[in-house]
Amino acid sequence: MVIIDSRLLEVIYMEVKILDFDTTAEIVFINPKIEDPRDSLSNLAQIKIGPKKQIVQVIRSELVKENEIGLPTSLAHTMKAEHGDNITINPRRRTNVLNTIMKKYDRQKWSSDDLRSIIDEMYTGNVTDLEMAAFTLAMQYEDLSTDETEHLTRSFTLHSEQIDFGEPVYDKHSIGGIPGNKVSLLIVPIIAAAGLLIPKTSSRAITSPSGTADTMEVLCNVGFNAEEIMEIAPKTRGMLVWGGQLNLAPVDSQIIKRVERPLSLDPKSVIIASILSKKLSTGVDHMVLDMPTGAETKMESRAEAKELSHLFVEIGRRVGIKIDCALTYADQPVGHAIGPALEAREALLTLDGKGPRSVLEKSNELAGILLEMAGVASRGKGAHVAEEYVKSGKALEKFYEIIEAQGGSRILPKDIPVGQYTSTITAKEDGYISHISNKQIKNIAATLGCPSDKSAGLYIHRKKGEFVKKGDVILELYSTREGALDDAMNIAKLKSPFLQEGMVLERISSSPIQLD
Amino acid sequence: MVIIDSRLLEVIYMEVKILDFDTTAEIVFINPKIEDPRDSLSNLAQIKIGPKKQIVQVIRSELVKENEIGLPTSLAHTMKAEHGDNITINPRRRTNVLNTIMKKYDRQKWSSDDLRSIIDEMYTGNVTDLEMAAFTLAMQYEDLSTDETEHLTRSFTLHSEQIDFGEPVYDKHSIGGIPGNKVSLLIVPIIAAAGLLIPKTSSRAITSPSGTADTMEVLCNVGFNAEEIMEIAPKTRGMLVWGGQLNLAPVDSQIIKRVERPLSLDPKSVIIASILSKKLSTGVDHMVLDMPTGAETKMESRAEAKELSHLFVEIGRRVGIKIDCALTYADQPVGHAIGPALEAREALLTLDGKGPRSVLEKSNELAGILLEMAGVASRGKGAHVAEEYVKSGKALEKFYEIIEAQGGSRILPKDIPVGQYTSTITAKEDGYISHISNKQIKNIAATLGCPSDKSAGLYIHRKKGEFVKKGDVILELYSTREGALDDAMNIAKLKSPFLQEGMVLERISSSPIQLD
Repeated sequence: MVIIDSRLLEVIYMEVKILDFDTTAEIVFINPKIEDPRDSLSNLAQIKIGPKKQIVQVIRSELVKENEIGLPTSLAHTMKAEHGDNITINPRRRTNVLNTIMKKYDRQKWSSDDLRSIIDEMYTGNVTDLEMAAFTLAMQYEDLSTDETEHLTRSFTLHSEQIDFGEPVYDKHSIGGIPGNKVSLLIVPIIAAAGLLIPKTSSRAITSPSGTADTMEVLCNVGFNAEEIMEIAPKTRGMLVWGGQLNLAPVDSQIIKRVERPLSLDPKSVIIASILSKKLSTGVDHMVLDMPTGAETKMESRAEAKELSHLFVEIGRRVGIKIDCALTYADQPVGHAIGPALEAREALLTLDGKGPRSVLEKSNELAGILLEMAGVASRGKGAHVAEEYVKSGKALEKFYEIIEAQGGSRILPKDIPVGQYTSTITAKEDGYISHISNKQIKNIAATLGCPSDKSAGLYIHRKKGEFVKKGDVILELYSTREGALDDAMNIAKLKSPFLQEGMVLERISSSPIQLD
Repeated sequence: MVIIDSRLLEVIYMEVKILDFDTTAEIVFINPKIEDPRDSLSNLAQIKIGPKKQIVQVIRSELVKENEIGLPTSLAHTMKAEHGDNITINPRRRTNVLNTIMKKYDRQKWSSDDLRSIIDEMYTGNVTDLEMAAFTLAMQYEDLSTDETEHLTRSFTLHSEQIDFGEPVYDKHSIGGIPGNKVSLLIVPIIAAAGLLIPKTSSRAITSPSGTADTMEVLCNVGFNAEEIMEIAPKTRGMLVWGGQLNLAPVDSQIIKRVERPLSLDPKSVIIASILSKKLSTGVDHMVLDMPTGAETKMESRAEAKELSHLFVEIGRRVGIKIDCALTYADQPVGHAIGPALEAREALLTLDGKGPRSVLEKSNELAGILLEMAGVASRGKGAHVAEEYVKSGKALEKFYEIIEAQGGSRILPKDIPVGQYTSTITAKEDGYISHISNKQIKNIAATLGCPSDKSAGLYIHRKKGEFVKKGDVILELYSTREGALDDAMNIAKLKSPFLQEGMVLERISSSPIQLD
């Protein structure tokens, strides 16, 4: 009888049975009769054939006999295992990582070494989901100290790809949370047109209708490796690529995937370390940070946004990134267009002088901050200098140059395809738009198919403060699937994404009805 | 192309493929090509055939085609599924449970309803390990308030089996952490001999060499269901059974198994709710709580033990259990015998007047508290009354009566088998035993095979404070496996479980060597 004894870290020798099926997860099968009194294998185990090692999940199954261990075909292939090979399986190597993580629950600080060792063990795949949750939840419960946040930032860069351009690198980053925020597609060409290097990596949407990478992908490729970026960016001075293809802060990506997303967590300390470690790894030394602040965004209050900004600036200072934070208006979506294709269109239109004032203004303001940081514009004149790049057409020309360098073509806004199924929502009466809900707009966009359906999205014809007459179109919805359009219309009917009111919002009577 | 859309809670219809193997975990297989952009199935999904529902883990495998869902044989059997049956799979039902759990991370209190709904969802199997970890870790980070602890205690009883004897029920419980603590085997017969009802449920060892249930199992059966206990206990007045067979506080058991054990957690609020909910469900209304306090135990300081005691007493008062806590000496193991068989032997010997003074004294003191609570002994006389039950042989006679009622026989201590492989550790020089390490004793016992090897264990011949001469036997080790004995001896050599010193423990010189 085989007994798994975690105390002795007993190594079990078994015989490989290659199973005639494949799984995407790394799992092995052992016989249910194998005793494991302490559940040592319930999380993860390590298998080994010769020098090949692999952390696997163990599943009990009658598929295999007691002396056998079943390997799905692809795992057998990776391990170079043959039927009948000797293989060892042992409970996951004991490490001190859980104790180190749990220090936080005893109100101790994590030292630089603590964080480095935790991140190291996570990188090695030696940390269970539960342990990773204990790590992340501690930070959700209480923010790390400034020192700890600095250490976490540095730790995240340890196993990260490093890109060094050998010259100052500029960057614009948004903490996100506001739909329609396509301004990176304007800022990058403005900055690049000014000759500064801005090889911007960005993410795909997680909860928003379109991430910068999703929007840019409408116009050209966004998947590039480090070598390609090192080759293209110095020539064009700007790029807009998807960071996911680079191996930036891989442990951070694991934490997001395995813990933060399933639990909807977003601890402040990890936000900072996550963003700044990636900037460090891509050589960024000057950054403007867009901090959308408003109802139904990540930063609901200015005080909160300011506090986070100060922390960003300080950690940036410590690790060598000069950061200027901009708290930006976010009580409604940015511009009119929501969704990858519609946003790409609006970005191009705005660079061509035909877009909404709000998109242009936000882009110029943020680009202006970078130009001032670089000394290209004097203090207070940055936005004006940025505007000149747009007005002169230099920014649009630069944008097309970048698009072409990234494998796209000089497409015109009108030629960008949008969803063929459309529907409109109109005003039921005369009145002012008093509110547009970021959250509801996001919901509707998601239902329409954003961001995976690039042609899906919505166009906000009338924004907050505008007066509309009965029958005026307020929203226009697009999708490539009729069913999705119907669902979205139903959701919009159920809970309107906007409020429309007369100038008198509420009447408070001087003689209220008496309740007895 | 099948796309899993968690937002719409889309239900996917698939075709059953019964696989020709079995797994102990509830898993199903779907084709890797099925898209799941939001990882909706990564935790748990629900499958449904007709009225049959089941929460399952989803594994991607080429075993099945895109229109198929693979069910291992036993799952197919439970679901009454046939090849080709229509089956629906959908992402785990959305509940508010995660939001409710996460309230704690925003420093909110959990209401009675909050806790009830969290525990309800856990009972339904609708809570992932990660969510359960978020719940438990919050309490590890910060103790619940007294109100919350009361609510948690009551919530744990919700899905629990309920036993009602219709008369006052007495109980003795230990929070554990000290090896050799076999006193329940003496206290139960003493109390039962006094005519009070004490149908004690206890646990098996998790980290200790022997739980009360493990020790009792050496002498008779410990697995009884509620009906059997209701039948036997009122006759014998006492029982010593394993609580695991009853369905007491099932959600608590899940939390222990799925989160607390893998993460080595033991949040105070859960300790209290876990113990008291089980007592509530078995009708206990008077309890003495043994709180071993000392180095290398759960309660290292008296202040800590006192604080926990006051909380126990208060929660007990609120839910209707009168509790007296006893902080007990725990700087070394209780008595001489460690391990199921050796402890059962020592318990019988002590009831027969031939055991160690410390075991007898601790038993009499704790039993005495119960006798006083019951009014059977006047205040301050309880231990004396208890001692009389032992001296007169009534307690031993009662113990044999209980053993027989639980299917055992009147075995004599010398006839209890202990491990055939033995070895001794002797004093290397003359001196006093200045320290015996609970932790090292536990380690050695575990290596010898405790608690699954009932005959394994160790006997401590000389305890703290005793003077030993060179060559005297201090420890005797027992096992049924020669290899385990060797391993244990090696561990003991590597790190001695005791310290032996002369009367001068250390010399502090008045003229220390000067360091420059």
